[in-house]
Amino acid sequence: MGVYTASATAPVNIATLKYWGKRDKKLNLPTNSSISVTLSQADLRTHTSVAASSDFHEDKLWLNDKLESIKSERTIACLADLRKLRKEMEDQKSDLPPLSTYPLHIVSENNFPTAAGLASSAAGFAALVVAISRLYQLPQDMSEISKIARKGSGSACRSLFGGYVAWIMGDLENGEDSKAVEIASAEHWPEMKAAILVISDDKKDTPSTTGMQSTVASSDLFQWRVKEVVPRRFEEMKSSILEKDFAKFGELTMKDSNSFHAVCLDSYPPIFYLNDTSKKIIKLIHNLNETENAIIAAYTFDAGPNAVIYYEEKNEKKVLGSLYEHLSSVSGWKDSLVNELNLTSDGSSNSDLHKGVSRIILTGVGEGPQGTNDSLINEQGLPCSGV
Amino acid sequence: MGVYTASATAPVNIATLKYWGKRDKKLNLPTNSSISVTLSQADLRTHTSVAASSDFHEDKLWLNDKLESIKSERTIACLADLRKLRKEMEDQKSDLPPLSTYPLHIVSENNFPTAAGLASSAAGFAALVVAISRLYQLPQDMSEISKIARKGSGSACRSLFGGYVAWIMGDLENGEDSKAVEIASAEHWPEMKAAILVISDDKKDTPSTTGMQSTVASSDLFQWRVKEVVPRRFEEMKSSILEKDFAKFGELTMKDSNSFHAVCLDSYPPIFYLNDTSKKIIKLIHNLNETENAIIAAYTFDAGPNAVIYYEEKNEKKVLGSLYEHLSSVSGWKDSLVNELNLTSDGSSNSDLHKGVSRIILTGVGEGPQGTNDSLINEQGLPCSGV
Repeated sequence: MGVYTASATAPVNIATLKYWGKRDKKLNLPTNSSISVTLSQADLRTHTSVAASSDFHEDKLWLNDKLESIKSERTIACLADLRKLRKEMEDQKSDLPPLSTYPLHIVSENNFPTAAGLASSAAGFAALVVAISRLYQLPQDMSEISKIARKGSGSACRSLFGGYVAWIMGDLENGEDSKAVEIASAEHWPEMKAAILVISDDKKDTPSTTGMQSTVASSDLFQWRVKEVVPRRFEEMKSSILEKDFAKFGELTMKDSNSFHAVCLDSYPPIFYLNDTSKKIIKLIHNLNETENAIIAAYTFDAGPNAVIYYEEKNEKKVLGSLYEHLSSVSGWKDSLVNELNLTSDGSSNSDLHKGVSRIILTGVGEGPQGTNDSLINEQGLPCSGV
Repeated sequence: MGVYTASATAPVNIATLKYWGKRDKKLNLPTNSSISVTLSQADLRTHTSVAASSDFHEDKLWLNDKLESIKSERTIACLADLRKLRKEMEDQKSDLPPLSTYPLHIVSENNFPTAAGLASSAAGFAALVVAISRLYQLPQDMSEISKIARKGSGSACRSLFGGYVAWIMGDLENGEDSKAVEIASAEHWPEMKAAILVISDDKKDTPSTTGMQSTVASSDLFQWRVKEVVPRRFEEMKSSILEKDFAKFGELTMKDSNSFHAVCLDSYPPIFYLNDTSKKIIKLIHNLNETENAIIAAYTFDAGPNAVIYYEEKNEKKVLGSLYEHLSSVSGWKDSLVNELNLTSDGSSNSDLHKGVSRIILTGVGEGPQGTNDSLINEQGLPCSGV
């Protein structure tokens, strides 16, 4: 019996110019281009191992130690695309093992709690397609592979690169030109840090796909955003990254987060992702920047209340100091960093911000997907964890 | 000694198509036309008495029993305009007493607590200009007078009429064509009711003038709102009023409230007027309409968290029933109405909505300003209340 295996890890990315609106729901083609920062896999990553064997009976997926059926159309579409590329290779080289015809076993794990409400689908689909690309030894480059990840989850295509990434919306109906490209590597601007504030929230958010459809169909302001606002902002943000101009980058990031939530609010019925805690964080960052008389920190919010605060390493003490003052009691602070930066909180803060925040995750810009020999699948093609 | 007096009352109005943005700050000229419903003076009104006498030493204003200095440029502009019109009359008829040269004593009272956070400036400036117009026996019609009230507070011009009122933005630089007109009288559609939910809020809202300036200067979506969204909506809302089409009127009202708060959020820094309680009310109204499979209630929010719910009298039991379920414990319910409609609350509601609402005010569409012989000023030209 032959069991072929491969493994990869892939990062989370957080958009600074938001993807909101599909022009094609099945192919996940967006109504505007977007930009993101890839976060360090040391803190947030999906690790996926895949195995192919003629002895397997069907495609199977173990996600965070639980066997899940592969019934999602999006996952099926990704697997079909990858098998098609492999099949083309096999047709040209008849001595290749016919992996495209073998069922797949997929084992995937996140190094962060799903409960945190962090969008893990981007890292998940990126790790999936990269692991299978490795298994199939596909020659396509990351931008090509990103088009397959995109079909799984739109924003997943941006997790195919490290550093600073653009998802070019493309024009073609078949989506062949809608793909991720690197704007700049992590090494270009390695000083970019991110603090993720996980917000406690009891209400169920509108799923992003549903929300996007509603905004496209009902917001009167949306057309202006995608036609006029985003294209201009895209070029400006790209320049700010190439020039490492944090003040510009931060301002554009905050404005675009607000613009995205504005068109959500302008949808009918309105969609709210920001809650009162999110608003307090927004206020806190603007106050900090005002006090410093410079933009040294920038917030952004996805389709949920969690905040991501970007800042440069040189301002770490100021930015984290400002957060620590209100949030010293929440989990996630690293003692070594708190000591090193000499962060203090005299407990006299009148703010009840800590009540709305459950956790802080301190991270920064990071690398793209990595191949690894660390396999989550054993020689029988089953999860090493034994579930 | 001759003391000339006159009195008037004027109503509050709540916009259903929002005024947000000035093209001229001094003249209060708006960037878009707006529409409002005038509310009944039985529940919310300002009562103003004015007196003129050559024996007075200076213009004086008693507001809710407190002597205030008249130093607001806006009030001074209104008084100057009214005196100018009076002066023109006096110049033509030399036997008229020269009231335009006499100092004014002004006494003004609201029949609702200022603490409720309801914008009382509209009713206040409307009552002021109507009372002085009566004192001066000005021949100008209400639309003409509305231009003077507009200089006091933009939305005040709409309080010069009862029923359903449009403020036509106008094109002229001097503002001479920016005035209120009646779309339809209260009698045309007397079944319109309004429930005002006064929201408890500890934070200080951005003053509307400051907020407007910030939105005009910084929101990328704002230009689209005023150029494309509002003009179309204005015509649609006007038709819905003339046709008494509540479903259409309600949908447009909710959409425009959301659009206004969306451009606030799109401002930089973002402006938030809606809080988590406001959002719960929005959700509650959409749920109610969904259950009824028809739009029977519509929310709107001004530059603060307070909600105004419009509905037709025939749906009073359904709409107030839905509110009473969550809000039976807040003050402002009329026992007679609760009994008549047989409203009940079994206290089993899981919602904590009542915690965020301090008061309900039940009212409906009403008449415009009224002259009255009920004077708040005595024969000596001082407040009857004796302060």
